Amino acid sequence: MSLDPQNEQEHAATLFTRWSETALEDRLMFFRALPPREAGDLFFGLSTHEQAFLIEFLSTSEKRIWLRALAPDDTADVLQSLPVDMRWNLIDLLDDSARFEVAGLLAYEEDEAGGLMNPRFPRIRPDASVREAISYLRKQAHVNLESLYYCYVLDQSQHLLGVISFRDLIIAKETDTVRSRMRTDVVSVNEKMNQVNVAKLMADHDLVAIPVVDETGRMKGIVTHDDIVDVVQEEATEDIHKIGGTEALDVPYMDTPILSLIKKRGGWLAVLFVGEMLTASAMAHYEEEIASAVVLALFIPLIISSGGNSGSQASTLVIRALALEEIRLRDWWKVFKRELVSGLILGTILALIGVIRIIAWENIFHSYGEHYLKLALTVSLSLVGVVLWGTISGSMLPLILSKCKLDPASASAPFVATLVDVSGLVIYFTLAKLILSGTLL
Amino acid sequence: MSLDPQNEQEHAATLFTRWSETALEDRLMFFRALPPREAGDLFFGLSTHEQAFLIEFLSTSEKRIWLRALAPDDTADVLQSLPVDMRWNLIDLLDDSARFEVAGLLAYEEDEAGGLMNPRFPRIRPDASVREAISYLRKQAHVNLESLYYCYVLDQSQHLLGVISFRDLIIAKETDTVRSRMRTDVVSVNEKMNQVNVAKLMADHDLVAIPVVDETGRMKGIVTHDDIVDVVQEEATEDIHKIGGTEALDVPYMDTPILSLIKKRGGWLAVLFVGEMLTASAMAHYEEEIASAVVLALFIPLIISSGGNSGSQASTLVIRALALEEIRLRDWWKVFKRELVSGLILGTILALIGVIRIIAWENIFHSYGEHYLKLALTVSLSLVGVVLWGTISGSMLPLILSKCKLDPASASAPFVATLVDVSGLVIYFTLAKLILSGTLL
Repeated sequence: MSLDPQNEQEHAATLFTRWSETALEDRLMFFRALPPREAGDLFFGLSTHEQAFLIEFLSTSEKRIWLRALAPDDTADVLQSLPVDMRWNLIDLLDDSARFEVAGLLAYEEDEAGGLMNPRFPRIRPDASVREAISYLRKQAHVNLESLYYCYVLDQSQHLLGVISFRDLIIAKETDTVRSRMRTDVVSVNEKMNQVNVAKLMADHDLVAIPVVDETGRMKGIVTHDDIVDVVQEEATEDIHKIGGTEALDVPYMDTPILSLIKKRGGWLAVLFVGEMLTASAMAHYEEEIASAVVLALFIPLIISSGGNSGSQASTLVIRALALEEIRLRDWWKVFKRELVSGLILGTILALIGVIRIIAWENIFHSYGEHYLKLALTVSLSLVGVVLWGTISGSMLPLILSKCKLDPASASAPFVATLVDVSGLVIYFTLAKLILSGTLL
Repeated sequence: MSLDPQNEQEHAATLFTRWSETALEDRLMFFRALPPREAGDLFFGLSTHEQAFLIEFLSTSEKRIWLRALAPDDTADVLQSLPVDMRWNLIDLLDDSARFEVAGLLAYEEDEAGGLMNPRFPRIRPDASVREAISYLRKQAHVNLESLYYCYVLDQSQHLLGVISFRDLIIAKETDTVRSRMRTDVVSVNEKMNQVNVAKLMADHDLVAIPVVDETGRMKGIVTHDDIVDVVQEEATEDIHKIGGTEALDVPYMDTPILSLIKKRGGWLAVLFVGEMLTASAMAHYEEEIASAVVLALFIPLIISSGGNSGSQASTLVIRALALEEIRLRDWWKVFKRELVSGLILGTILALIGVIRIIAWENIFHSYGEHYLKLALTVSLSLVGVVLWGTISGSMLPLILSKCKLDPASASAPFVATLVDVSGLVIYFTLAKLILSGTLL
């Protein structure tokens, strides 16, 4: 696909939607061909990862322009997406105050409040009048306060005393003091708080921005609503990747180098493979039974996959409910009871379908020999057992992982399926020995 | 667990975190025991579903108080979570203007912009001065504009002309006209736009609020940032449930009645079970081979589960990338090439582990007889084939579903696993016949 930079209709918006599929050299060409304002719209609309990708290939003078155009927290994010050896060269392109701010932000972990926050925010003294506050904001008009809606009231040592919204400033009398109009019951977060908790707190309180403070209550910056959507998406993506049995990719699928993609999948795949080898051992244990009644082998994939499927269902439901805090650890007994009932009923449904199938096939094709009713009994009881076991272990495993301070999302669908496969075989052959000994066995 | 309403420390915050595990009668008792302000903090912090749950059991006069305290869009959401026959009784408890607004909102689908929006927003004429605008906002101070940051500039027939932020009002000269200071390049959405697209647009532009207009450009309301986080969470939850092989639950796991839980899981489980029955047919087709070489049966679970696992990985990665628009349909060929390479390498890794295992077990336990090398070859080639097939079908299936205007997330881990199980058996036994005929077969 090629874009024509001369075509006026190919403005930033179009380019934006086609960005991910545009070849790198074309991206550079079109980006450079845009008028400054449209280039800005495009650049600020890109994800951190895409911004970093572009910055990496711009000339030094372009790098300086675009890095300086970003807010310090966004600059820090871009730098964090780039190789470590490039970071310090790029930091040198910033002006003194931004360099100081960005270096401070880089000291935080990416997933803590400090790593998300913008260190620039409107601050005011408590004894200022509303008129003074407004005049201060007017003077700050050159600073990019576009996404800011609150003034933070700080004492001389930067301790957060209260907050006043721009709207309250408008509504208040000009002679009122800021102190008399500010809200003092401010929800704030510690600079070390994990981003997931910051996002939850902001969502629970419907906040547009939340102040970040250090241990002593000194204000360091603000986390704004737009960061929260990113955090929520990021966390959901991580959980989805893990549920699918892959290590979280961190970067978009298409931008993940193929070797890293293989590494993130190969690790789990190999672990699951080694775990699944236990099925070969279990099967070897029952080799004699299979040899004397090959018909038993026919139902092995059907039975173990039913356990895996019901286990995947249970584990993904519980993983998501834990992530949304709909379930807590101490609810495990309630979850257990629900899954016990669900597992029994779901297993019975599958067992009935299984019995119908065996009887029908026997009557039509004479597939299973004279003991087909006993076979049907074996298969259907195994289905109830395996599905019940699948739902119970699928639902309890995320809770156990969570109890052990591990990520519940690691109880992925493939992981649960593998676990249930081995035990499914044991359930099936144990029942077969009990029911079929003396006839088929 | 019991809470003591007399204990001053059991304030709203504590109650809030314990809410979901508090029995219904206790919820009512504690809610009623709270001082009005704390009851408000608690109530407004609850999810729509929990608000509806509480409202349902309050007395009529309490219902009236709390429904009237909600913004019209939140009232509509609460009503939508309640049984249809209750809705109209509750609407009658509202005052005239709210009743009109809420009834209007209920006419929209829950997942379109109109169903999300708040019909109350500050509006101003373009020829007003900044001073007039500010004085208008002062008069509106009694209205709950807490989460509003913009004034919308409308003409007499409610067409949206522009927008001015509270901050711009503060910065502007009082004698300026609103028209001279407003932004006219306003991003707005149609009332029928799907909430997923609304959320994307707001996230891409970092908007705190987006105006909703009808076909003729008349403004109907605003969707605010707090709705977006809910939409993003909701969509991720739906995808996660589907990836786990369950119909999306719509309500939190713990609040889903057990019969509905079983229905949403049983449907897919039964479909997958019937699909998986093909494995029994496929196995029956190879009954003779199994009878003459039982050792072949030992590796069946191992081989088909490896295909299922690699397929789950590929499908969840592609489903999520599609949801985040990191991949588009036309990228299918790029995805195909990536997965081809990944599948080959991942399959080879598993094949090597498999070969080592067979050779080791043969040397230690003499498990597999004289033809163990040919067996190892069969197993390892099958693994490459099955894993390759798993990654290719797992990655292409979501794209095919999306092409057919179906939800790509329906290509769930269990669905892909089932699909790959059947073909995995065919691959395995075909290779076995080719390699082992004349020796084991």
